[in-house]
Amino acid sequence: MANITKKVSWSSRGDESGGGERTPLLNGSEEVRYSRQLSGDGGMFHIGRLSTVDLEEDMTSDEVTIDGVKVCVCVCVFQSLDYDNSENQLFLEEERRMSFLGFKCLEISRWVICGLIGFLTGLIACCIDIAVENLAGLKYYVVKQNIEKFTEVGGLSISLILWAVLNSAFVMVGAVIVAFFEPGAAGSGIPQIKCYLNGVKIPRVVRLKTLVVKVCGVICSVAGGLAVGKEGPMIHSGAVVAAGVSQGRSTSLKKDFKIFEYFRRDTEKRDFVSAGAAAGVSAAFGAPVGGVLFSLEEGASFWNQMLTWRIFFASMISTFTLNFFLSIYNNKPGDLSSPGLINFGRFESDSVAYNLYEIPLFIVMGAAGGLLGALFNTLNYWLTIFRIRYVHRPCLQVMEAMLVAAVTATVSFAMIYFSNDCQPLGPDQSEDYPLQLFCADGEYNSMATAFFNTPERSVRSLFHNPPGSYNPLTLSLFTLTYFFLACWTYGLTVSAGVFIPSLLIGAAWGRLFGILLAAITPNGSVWAVPGKYALMGAAAQLGGIVRMTLSLTVIMVEATGNVTYGLPIMLVLLTAKIVGDYFVEGLYDIHIKLQSVPFLHLEAPATSHWLTAREVMGAPVTCFNRIEKVGTIVDVLSNTSTNHNGFPVVVPVAASDDLGKICGLILRSQLIVLLKHKVFVELARSRLTQRKLQLKDFRDAYPRFPPIQSIHVSQDERECMMDLTEFMNPTPYTVPQETSLPRVFKLFRALGLRHLVVVDSENRVVGLVTRKDLARYHLGKHGLEEMQLAQT
Amino acid sequence: MANITKKVSWSSRGDESGGGERTPLLNGSEEVRYSRQLSGDGGMFHIGRLSTVDLEEDMTSDEVTIDGVKVCVCVCVFQSLDYDNSENQLFLEEERRMSFLGFKCLEISRWVICGLIGFLTGLIACCIDIAVENLAGLKYYVVKQNIEKFTEVGGLSISLILWAVLNSAFVMVGAVIVAFFEPGAAGSGIPQIKCYLNGVKIPRVVRLKTLVVKVCGVICSVAGGLAVGKEGPMIHSGAVVAAGVSQGRSTSLKKDFKIFEYFRRDTEKRDFVSAGAAAGVSAAFGAPVGGVLFSLEEGASFWNQMLTWRIFFASMISTFTLNFFLSIYNNKPGDLSSPGLINFGRFESDSVAYNLYEIPLFIVMGAAGGLLGALFNTLNYWLTIFRIRYVHRPCLQVMEAMLVAAVTATVSFAMIYFSNDCQPLGPDQSEDYPLQLFCADGEYNSMATAFFNTPERSVRSLFHNPPGSYNPLTLSLFTLTYFFLACWTYGLTVSAGVFIPSLLIGAAWGRLFGILLAAITPNGSVWAVPGKYALMGAAAQLGGIVRMTLSLTVIMVEATGNVTYGLPIMLVLLTAKIVGDYFVEGLYDIHIKLQSVPFLHLEAPATSHWLTAREVMGAPVTCFNRIEKVGTIVDVLSNTSTNHNGFPVVVPVAASDDLGKICGLILRSQLIVLLKHKVFVELARSRLTQRKLQLKDFRDAYPRFPPIQSIHVSQDERECMMDLTEFMNPTPYTVPQETSLPRVFKLFRALGLRHLVVVDSENRVVGLVTRKDLARYHLGKHGLEEMQLAQT
Repeated sequence: MANITKKVSWSSRGDESGGGERTPLLNGSEEVRYSRQLSGDGGMFHIGRLSTVDLEEDMTSDEVTIDGVKVCVCVCVFQSLDYDNSENQLFLEEERRMSFLGFKCLEISRWVICGLIGFLTGLIACCIDIAVENLAGLKYYVVKQNIEKFTEVGGLSISLILWAVLNSAFVMVGAVIVAFFEPGAAGSGIPQIKCYLNGVKIPRVVRLKTLVVKVCGVICSVAGGLAVGKEGPMIHSGAVVAAGVSQGRSTSLKKDFKIFEYFRRDTEKRDFVSAGAAAGVSAAFGAPVGGVLFSLEEGASFWNQMLTWRIFFASMISTFTLNFFLSIYNNKPGDLSSPGLINFGRFESDSVAYNLYEIPLFIVMGAAGGLLGALFNTLNYWLTIFRIRYVHRPCLQVMEAMLVAAVTATVSFAMIYFSNDCQPLGPDQSEDYPLQLFCADGEYNSMATAFFNTPERSVRSLFHNPPGSYNPLTLSLFTLTYFFLACWTYGLTVSAGVFIPSLLIGAAWGRLFGILLAAITPNGSVWAVPGKYALMGAAAQLGGIVRMTLSLTVIMVEATGNVTYGLPIMLVLLTAKIVGDYFVEGLYDIHIKLQSVPFLHLEAPATSHWLTAREVMGAPVTCFNRIEKVGTIVDVLSNTSTNHNGFPVVVPVAASDDLGKICGLILRSQLIVLLKHKVFVELARSRLTQRKLQLKDFRDAYPRFPPIQSIHVSQDERECMMDLTEFMNPTPYTVPQETSLPRVFKLFRALGLRHLVVVDSENRVVGLVTRKDLARYHLGKHGLEEMQLAQT
Repeated sequence: MANITKKVSWSSRGDESGGGERTPLLNGSEEVRYSRQLSGDGGMFHIGRLSTVDLEEDMTSDEVTIDGVKVCVCVCVFQSLDYDNSENQLFLEEERRMSFLGFKCLEISRWVICGLIGFLTGLIACCIDIAVENLAGLKYYVVKQNIEKFTEVGGLSISLILWAVLNSAFVMVGAVIVAFFEPGAAGSGIPQIKCYLNGVKIPRVVRLKTLVVKVCGVICSVAGGLAVGKEGPMIHSGAVVAAGVSQGRSTSLKKDFKIFEYFRRDTEKRDFVSAGAAAGVSAAFGAPVGGVLFSLEEGASFWNQMLTWRIFFASMISTFTLNFFLSIYNNKPGDLSSPGLINFGRFESDSVAYNLYEIPLFIVMGAAGGLLGALFNTLNYWLTIFRIRYVHRPCLQVMEAMLVAAVTATVSFAMIYFSNDCQPLGPDQSEDYPLQLFCADGEYNSMATAFFNTPERSVRSLFHNPPGSYNPLTLSLFTLTYFFLACWTYGLTVSAGVFIPSLLIGAAWGRLFGILLAAITPNGSVWAVPGKYALMGAAAQLGGIVRMTLSLTVIMVEATGNVTYGLPIMLVLLTAKIVGDYFVEGLYDIHIKLQSVPFLHLEAPATSHWLTAREVMGAPVTCFNRIEKVGTIVDVLSNTSTNHNGFPVVVPVAASDDLGKICGLILRSQLIVLLKHKVFVELARSRLTQRKLQLKDFRDAYPRFPPIQSIHVSQDERECMMDLTEFMNPTPYTVPQETSLPRVFKLFRALGLRHLVVVDSENRVVGLVTRKDLARYHLGKHGLEEMQLAQT
């Protein structure tokens, strides 16, 4: 077969479909590079390769018929993180050897790492902010000059084309790097981080390459004038920084600093990633407390005071770093009182207090936000399905992104062009690019403040411009167009967030609501300050789309610098969530679900008491003996149809009994390391040549354990035995098979388990509960439902 | 023996000692009413009664030699809360019967309860605030008039006496109700709530009587001019409100509203108490987020999103209610933008930004706060030991409180009298009671703003009065005297908090620091704004004393309404904690430890990996059979020397084997209810007459299960059998005996367990781990130490 790349496509199992390329490799095997697009978030691509030597640990194979030929395609599966330490003898010995001082040093290292995470995240936020500001500034300057030039002489279509081309160019760069280099960097990254903190390992999500592409991508998409924000991606960036810094090495750059080796395991890494995510939120919104709450809400199932305190530290350092560098950039060095990336401006409590009778109004706005959010999510869901079916090739994706950029520019231009809303240019003019267009001298086009601006600045204008700055028609038109633009934009193959567009839509209709209130109620112009209603609308819309609650309230409070609005914002978010949840799930959850991620919610479904461990567990379980034949282990690990990651170690009870008594649990990754280091007991020669392995060997292999196929085991070696006693976790958590599902769920979730062994009254292994066993039950409208999850 | 009350006293086991009264009762038994004072917090009294019919469930007996006679004294022991549901057949049946709608209703009830908790807590805070303001206002008005009268004619000693008498009178009322009616209401209540949220049931801590005494007591002590705050007790009040409201009945008032019966168990009650505590913090400091974090930091080991969200709701409602009623009281109805009970005034970020080079200064202040806090705690520790030994009789306690009140008034008066610090009375004078004294007309005595005022107002003056309002000598003297006064006051038998005095001390020396900085550094008067340093000093001092971190940062940020100071406050608190922890524990922890409460920290001590479940567990364990003889059960429960609360239920393996195989776990309280309802199987008559019990029977008995002595079991009945199958929890959590202590600890803490069964490889019960087994290990300066805990 010649070395020709052949395009293939496949589809199976309902919504799933994919496309890709088959390239025969030089070594005789055939590479199938294909993308399995389950999510329109753009960040959820899965590249699989069919190659016996190149199987990554997070892939499994899948039989698919391509062009009538059955081929084995490697499919990425979602693996769980091991939040539960494997307390094997090696680990215990190390811990026991360690002195009190050693633990102190570790604790100090953790603080240092969190400080570093905060610092680097702040720095990245600062770079993004400055780059976006300059690029967008340049673009708007050029377009404004052009528009002013052609307003009088006619021929504004040239300005339009210039604007559209500039936008598309920026977006093209952003889309190309994402689509071709690192599809994992697409979207806001919040769903991925949610999954990661939930305990699901999403492939490639915390790699250096992802970070680089993400940062460049977000700069391009915001500068390209898309209806996106630069805040969501910060959370992802923070998480990547954390995953990198805490390991003291980069596997991508093949550089090992030989530090922080103790932290090279899932338990510690996940803790640091929480800190990174919090630092990201903190940098994006100037909300350190909100960041901590975000991390806790999404991730930390087990509350740990010291961890939280470190997360808070990282968040604080992150905001601080951002402010410090921005203050230098803005020539006010040392002035540390400015907030994060986003700047909503400060609401002064004296000017805009609220009254008791306004609370029902706020609740109505919350309900409206919930409805609009549900509409947004439903539309985006359909669009995502469409994208999964038809827009799965990188070049198509780039073209779609460019199209959206061009359409955004065109629509904006048309809206500005046909708008007659001229406002006087005040002395305290906060607009950065006031467009005069067809207005009289000393006036500016009000529609342009909304469209001809970065979305953040538009939000600020809507919050703070004095009453009368916008006329209702402008706002209605703006809301309508921006709603659809934002909905279309989310899920493109670019790095971008949905926070700011949501806020902008909400702020627009909120302000409209305020203006109408002021007009129709007696005395309304006194209390119905439009800025206040813009804020509530923004909260309602955002809440209706993302359905975050606690952390979002705190983020909004911190970003507006005003505690007074705490209760109303909370009520608005709560109403939006309740109303929205009635129709459809939150945007992030939709994308997580389309992805079939085994996402564990906080509690078992309410009506699941009738299920017991016996019903949910996976059985029969592949078990190993304490001293097991190497051949058996290799065969089990190579068996792609089971693909388990944890194996109970058992002691046989009786020869007749096929169920053994539990005595430990060993992980696939540990077995792989054991096989790689040939830790065999050669029984034939009747001497123990078992090499002494150390924890370091396991840590060095973490997190990219080689696939079983890459380990060569000779026929002689297959006959050897392997003593697992030292490496297995001798005290895995177990539950009796009568345990109810909520009880199993609570244990699983509270301890962040990956495998929970189900035993009978004799302590014999009868089953194994893993994440997917628990995640598939969820509460639908009509009671308990069982879901289809990704093959794991 | 005549019916004469005889005074007795006893002492045993190191620091413990007690005194009390013996009263022969009419029924022939003898009552020993004695107080076991282990804590100087004033809130930790334990009243025991020796009476076979009046033994409360939270007491056990103790042999003590009183006047040479061995008597059995009932000692309150600390029991754990059952945060783990007993998922027995009854419970599962109920849960399985419940429809999806039923669960929705429960969820709604939870929200309603949280709303009610917030509302009532806010209302109580409002009452306290108004009462204190009026009483203190009246007092200061009278004294001021008197001073002004006597300043000119001479004879200020009469004013002093008036002031001292007024103070003592208020304090007497407060101390009498606390000492004689409800000793549990003494102190701030924060240590008790910390313990409760940690899972330890402190007797009488969440009763209605405690609440009433607490509220009246705190009004008296603040109005009585003691160096105390009204904020700490709010947390306790909120918790009591929550415990009451959530149960839908009052056992004290013997009133059952027949609602919320589902919530009558420890799991649900503890969740609501967290919400109550948060609502208390929120009302006290106007810090809803701080309240949530306080509850989480102290209590919720298992993070639950919905619970947190409800806690936040309660907090919000609480602040809102307080603001709403205060706005009406202040004749500005509907103006909801004022903060909580405490009002630090708003720091405007424009006026007082900080610079990078000030951060080291803040850290130095943090270290100073840590040192001063350690000094404060050490002095208070000695004082507490002294009080335990010598001031344990209620009348002595009342007298001490009155003495402190009189001394406080005298010292304050002397300070004011001898101070020459006259300041001009500005136009924007914020002092409520400016004392002219010997100052010229149009001037006021600056020392009097600090002493002749409620502590909250003094703090506000120190934060916000313009530079130059205080001279350094005044501040130094004030700091010195107030430090010792506050230290003496904490632990008196009055309801009072330590937050405000700590803040006041810190604000005073912080402001002094700021003034000195401004004086000695070039250009210092520009950036070294004294108010800013007062704030940092306040944070440092409070952090040094109570050692709270995350929640305190957020509380300070919310109370000052300024996010800018987040990082510096955090750094200050962190430094104060690190420095302080080097010397001595936090004030609350000292009092908890003096109390020998089995308090579980968040993680097992770092160097405890060499311990396994086998070493820490209690063994042998009293077990029951599935079908057990009533006589055996009664004997075991009556055996006061063991006093276990949970019993593994076992199936015998072999006749020769004394260890049975685990098949369930049953609680003492469940057995008591079973015995009370005579749920016996009369084998003799060979028919099953076992009455069908329902969950309702258990809920009705909750939480004051009768003591075993009050249940009469006839000799015939003793021969009956009892079938435990239906009532035991068939799936208790178990661990193998090789499990390391950190692993046991993690399981125990994450799930809030009370009993953890240790089994061998055959699933036979070999031991039982309870809270006290884990709590006795802690990390001292020289590694792991084992503590003496209260006999449980």
